[in-house]
Amino acid sequence: MLVRWRKNVLVLLLAAGAIPVTYMVYFIATSDDAFDVNSDNAGVSALETRLVQRVREVENQNIGLRKQLSQTQNHLLRLQMTLAAANDSAGAGGNGTKIKCLNAEPDVPKCEVIHVAIVCAGHNSTRDVVTLIKSILFYRHNPLHLHFISDSVAQLILTKLFESWSVAEVEVSFYPADSIKPDVTWIPNRHYSGVYGLMKLTLPKTLPAELEKVIVLDTDVTFETDIAELWKIFRVLKGKQAIGLVENQSDWYLGKLWKNHQPWPALGRGFNTGVILLDLKMLRELSWMQMWRLIAEKELMSMLATSLADQDIFNAVLKQHPYLVYRLPCQWNVQLSMNTRSEQCYSEVADIKIIHWNSPMKLKVKNKHVEFFRNKYLTFLEYDGNLLRRELFGCQTASGGEGARNQDPLGELTEDDDCYDFRSERELVHRTHLYYMDYRYEPAPDDVTLVAQLSLDRLQMLELICKHWEGPISIALYMSDAEAQQFLRYALGSDILMARKNIGYHIVYRDGQFYPVNYLRNVALQEVKTSYVFLSDIDFLPMFGLYEYLKKAATTMAIGKQKKALVVPAFETQRYRLQFPKSKAELLSMLDMGTLFTFRYHVWPKGHAPTNFAKWRTATTPYTVNWEQDFEPYIMVQRDIPQFDQRFLGFGWNKVSHIMELDVQGYEFVVLPNAFVIHMPHAPSFDIAKFRSSSNYRKCLKVLKAEFQKDLSKKYGIKALKYLDVE
Amino acid sequence: MLVRWRKNVLVLLLAAGAIPVTYMVYFIATSDDAFDVNSDNAGVSALETRLVQRVREVENQNIGLRKQLSQTQNHLLRLQMTLAAANDSAGAGGNGTKIKCLNAEPDVPKCEVIHVAIVCAGHNSTRDVVTLIKSILFYRHNPLHLHFISDSVAQLILTKLFESWSVAEVEVSFYPADSIKPDVTWIPNRHYSGVYGLMKLTLPKTLPAELEKVIVLDTDVTFETDIAELWKIFRVLKGKQAIGLVENQSDWYLGKLWKNHQPWPALGRGFNTGVILLDLKMLRELSWMQMWRLIAEKELMSMLATSLADQDIFNAVLKQHPYLVYRLPCQWNVQLSMNTRSEQCYSEVADIKIIHWNSPMKLKVKNKHVEFFRNKYLTFLEYDGNLLRRELFGCQTASGGEGARNQDPLGELTEDDDCYDFRSERELVHRTHLYYMDYRYEPAPDDVTLVAQLSLDRLQMLELICKHWEGPISIALYMSDAEAQQFLRYALGSDILMARKNIGYHIVYRDGQFYPVNYLRNVALQEVKTSYVFLSDIDFLPMFGLYEYLKKAATTMAIGKQKKALVVPAFETQRYRLQFPKSKAELLSMLDMGTLFTFRYHVWPKGHAPTNFAKWRTATTPYTVNWEQDFEPYIMVQRDIPQFDQRFLGFGWNKVSHIMELDVQGYEFVVLPNAFVIHMPHAPSFDIAKFRSSSNYRKCLKVLKAEFQKDLSKKYGIKALKYLDVE
Repeated sequence: MLVRWRKNVLVLLLAAGAIPVTYMVYFIATSDDAFDVNSDNAGVSALETRLVQRVREVENQNIGLRKQLSQTQNHLLRLQMTLAAANDSAGAGGNGTKIKCLNAEPDVPKCEVIHVAIVCAGHNSTRDVVTLIKSILFYRHNPLHLHFISDSVAQLILTKLFESWSVAEVEVSFYPADSIKPDVTWIPNRHYSGVYGLMKLTLPKTLPAELEKVIVLDTDVTFETDIAELWKIFRVLKGKQAIGLVENQSDWYLGKLWKNHQPWPALGRGFNTGVILLDLKMLRELSWMQMWRLIAEKELMSMLATSLADQDIFNAVLKQHPYLVYRLPCQWNVQLSMNTRSEQCYSEVADIKIIHWNSPMKLKVKNKHVEFFRNKYLTFLEYDGNLLRRELFGCQTASGGEGARNQDPLGELTEDDDCYDFRSERELVHRTHLYYMDYRYEPAPDDVTLVAQLSLDRLQMLELICKHWEGPISIALYMSDAEAQQFLRYALGSDILMARKNIGYHIVYRDGQFYPVNYLRNVALQEVKTSYVFLSDIDFLPMFGLYEYLKKAATTMAIGKQKKALVVPAFETQRYRLQFPKSKAELLSMLDMGTLFTFRYHVWPKGHAPTNFAKWRTATTPYTVNWEQDFEPYIMVQRDIPQFDQRFLGFGWNKVSHIMELDVQGYEFVVLPNAFVIHMPHAPSFDIAKFRSSSNYRKCLKVLKAEFQKDLSKKYGIKALKYLDVE
Repeated sequence: MLVRWRKNVLVLLLAAGAIPVTYMVYFIATSDDAFDVNSDNAGVSALETRLVQRVREVENQNIGLRKQLSQTQNHLLRLQMTLAAANDSAGAGGNGTKIKCLNAEPDVPKCEVIHVAIVCAGHNSTRDVVTLIKSILFYRHNPLHLHFISDSVAQLILTKLFESWSVAEVEVSFYPADSIKPDVTWIPNRHYSGVYGLMKLTLPKTLPAELEKVIVLDTDVTFETDIAELWKIFRVLKGKQAIGLVENQSDWYLGKLWKNHQPWPALGRGFNTGVILLDLKMLRELSWMQMWRLIAEKELMSMLATSLADQDIFNAVLKQHPYLVYRLPCQWNVQLSMNTRSEQCYSEVADIKIIHWNSPMKLKVKNKHVEFFRNKYLTFLEYDGNLLRRELFGCQTASGGEGARNQDPLGELTEDDDCYDFRSERELVHRTHLYYMDYRYEPAPDDVTLVAQLSLDRLQMLELICKHWEGPISIALYMSDAEAQQFLRYALGSDILMARKNIGYHIVYRDGQFYPVNYLRNVALQEVKTSYVFLSDIDFLPMFGLYEYLKKAATTMAIGKQKKALVVPAFETQRYRLQFPKSKAELLSMLDMGTLFTFRYHVWPKGHAPTNFAKWRTATTPYTVNWEQDFEPYIMVQRDIPQFDQRFLGFGWNKVSHIMELDVQGYEFVVLPNAFVIHMPHAPSFDIAKFRSSSNYRKCLKVLKAEFQKDLSKKYGIKALKYLDVE
């Protein structure tokens, strides 16, 4: 059995070209002893031995040649850069002899903008692109302009992301993929990237006419150096060299990977298009769009479809017009595909510049140094993106450099104020990644979305809620970059969560010391697509069937037109192992037995007293209740309601203030007779512990409360006076 | 099936160098069928055909490579000639514009070892030094040799840290600070660094005589670039320049900061000694130890004491012997002290190389760009140190390059084993930072230490346990680097924790997918300094007074001599708001009322049944019980017991196996009549959820159990047979 699979594996390996012949050589050279055992065999022929020796010789020569080539290329590049710099300064002096070696100076002027184009479509690509962007930002010293070719999903996500990230000196532009499709959809493509995989071909047409050069990147590359180092290579492109590329590091284009494997034409090993220097101006002059189109049409007559998307077409064009290409040193695109020969590159050069995860297996690719590369990738995957908001000293372009925090409102604050921490954090804009995972849902007319927020310690509630609520959910997750990866692993491993596409997961990245509960609620609320929302909390389980019940209630009670807030009565258990009640009757008997209580019965009865639980016990029809001080029920309401007030951070008054504003707007609170939610127990959170132990926290909450009520009066006038009176 | 092969391909590739010849033989001999089923044996064999093809392929590649190489070499030569000509003419012009291009060759040979010396003493310094080391490792490409001048505390911590970190190509040496003290204690020093602040002066004497140069760093600096860049500056030190320093960026040595401010003598603004290039050989030749001693003695006659420790003396020496100093560019030590002028430095140069937090306020220093610098620091503070275990390609020195995981035991494992994940993780060595915070405790003779472990989600239990247990605690904390910072903030903000110096906090850094519960227990156990240990868990609260009770029991029952394990009966509550029983009587009445239960009464009574709770109710004296299958009591026992078996990860059998081994060693289990602990409720952890939902997890636990029992029989022979029988 063991022998059998090994044999199969070896056959497979040879078929894939993955066994270096040197190992076969090893066998042949030493096989005599081994064959002694099988003495009935004739042994290895003399011809075979000679052939194997020859292969070994030439292979060793090739390894040496590659090493020499890579060293020479790097040496050449360095000299070219030196000369380019020298020429610049010579040009300034107007005298060809005044050449200075300027290696002490940066070759890219300090604040020169570097342009990058990336095709990014769909939810999952936006996650990859963030890791790429983080690696660029980490090492960069220049302003950046990112050009995204995106579908509407990615554009929505990335717009919000960059807006809330507000990295200094980064400008972002979008080019709708839909308008580019006509230029490429005619090309049959077998590659997993689909139609988007072809769009890089159109960049000279798609990008603004005044843009002369751009670095084009796949979403699956990671930078290990300052992108300016790549940008400055543009200087050494000569004549009609308009496309800078690294040679392909697999044998794909050599065309012998399997029987009848017929790749597109390419120069030798061909080029990989994961990293491209594109001289847009030159390509426009050379009528690029027409050039590649004609060549693609011709090749497609025999090839029928592309296998590697744009890369096939780029290679076909370069085969015909080799003068177009500038060969980048191999470390600018170290390719970690299945049968890569990249080790020849990275084992010789000390400085890997860009890692390219160009296997469909991505990080799970098999490579003997994959651990090394994975570490480089994980560095940026889990890197706190907030740290990249740092400014660039001395570069103040139009895109600003004010950093993440809007400094103006803080200008009025003084650190002497005891509540400075609260006031300043309320102005924080949290980096936000909407729709972190696949989302597809078309709401029905009277549909309702459950809205909630959580941090990592409540993650296990997600599956539970899913079991109790089959409708759409909009949820804000407050996490660090590393925690978001934990969440992702958890979600991808959960059959329950993966079976749902109607959950919008919105990652709000941690910043500051308080849990920004109302900021989170607003993020989740803004992404609701249904007419109605059920404003819940993550530690509440809805009764079974609540979703259908609420949808019906919305219709029959016409809550949209009549400004109604439907109250879902809230209960709690202090026990972990709860037999969740299947009906109101069961719930009532558990109340009587002391297994359940009305929510916060022991510590804060005011929050739900107005619900009137005594009446609810026997109610069979909805009944209206009056607002009272500190009322904070869980409600279903129309989507277009006021936002939650973000001055309330951590614990205290975050729902109360919202309900108060609904009341001043004239909402009627109607209790639903056959609906309920139950609070599940959990250890007290850090925030509530802080509130309980800090007198300043409690004091500041009072101050903020008073200010909120004053603001309410300003906004609503006489109608809001009653809240002041109550106080 | 294909997938299965791929997996095996990796295994083979990893072991590529070691493919047994016999298999190769087998493969060659039978590969015909795979490639050419119809091949007859007449004429040329299929192998020969393939070999001929392969020869052609590699020969063609060879021709292509030679062509490319020759083109590139010619191009390079032309450029070199051009540059040479330019140099000549520039020289001829006589206007000093000579071209020197050192950057064409790497200035530090690829695998040259870079030596770094750091003075590090006390618990808190070890945390700072880790951040510094991380920043160096992140950017480095060379082997490193770290030389630590340390007190015994720092040496213990750093030895374990580097041992468990096992970063490739990093060697560590220690020089006991105690033996250096006589050389510097005679100098009165007002600086907060104390006597350790002066030790850098002795390095030419302290470091090995054969070591010729070293980079000396303060613990509060952060690298922003490859340290090789700094190392290569040694090359440009000329003549007697033996000390490379950056100018001081404050006005301190100008002596006008306040009335009567009289600093030590210095050249102009003086130099900062946070970053030093030290030519040890040259300094030894110049009798450095005598030189600085004489100058210090002379200055101290008027100055009385140093204000800035070694820095004052270095400056006084350089004032008298200015030829000794080489002035490093300012960005090699960007000083963020209170009145720094460093902005003049970093606003001009794009490339900050080293940040120096040389204010006593450290990260809280007031500086208008402090946010920018803090981000750079936080990057490494929270960076996952495991990612730095990556190897250096092509540098295999004595210190090895095998990376973090000891590959040998894994070599026997196969990924086909369903329990591969469990088996491989048991071999993980987790990076461990012992005594993460201040620790001072002298144990009494019959003293007992509470031993436990936790992850971040149980942090709030720490204060509670402290309220119930005033004795020493040894606790392993399983955390990521970022979580360790959360823990630190929490601990520093907790009056309860900060009032205790008898808690040893041992950070074990996360790695792998399972909670390594027994690894953690062993780390905590190994650091116990008292004669006895109480083996508890983090979610148990001891009864008030348990510490004193156990100490007394240890004495009266002589448990050390008689191999006794004293059982502390365990109870549980399912309610959050528990009035903790003040006595056994109160506990018994709560049991009767159903507020408390014996531990795991509902789900796993076997674990504690042998305790015999019925007997315990009325017991007033200790009583012996017999071991039974699955017994896992909480016990006090002598410190020198077997380790916990680390094959048990996550949940299941981790305590049971340990108790079993105590039993086979002949320990007597004696139940204490007046002691108890109570389990506090919490949400189910991820690990237990995984166990419950994964049948493979449960299956592997059974396999591991069986293997453990077999190992026990091997180790203890006939005595251990009864455990096999039970199964």
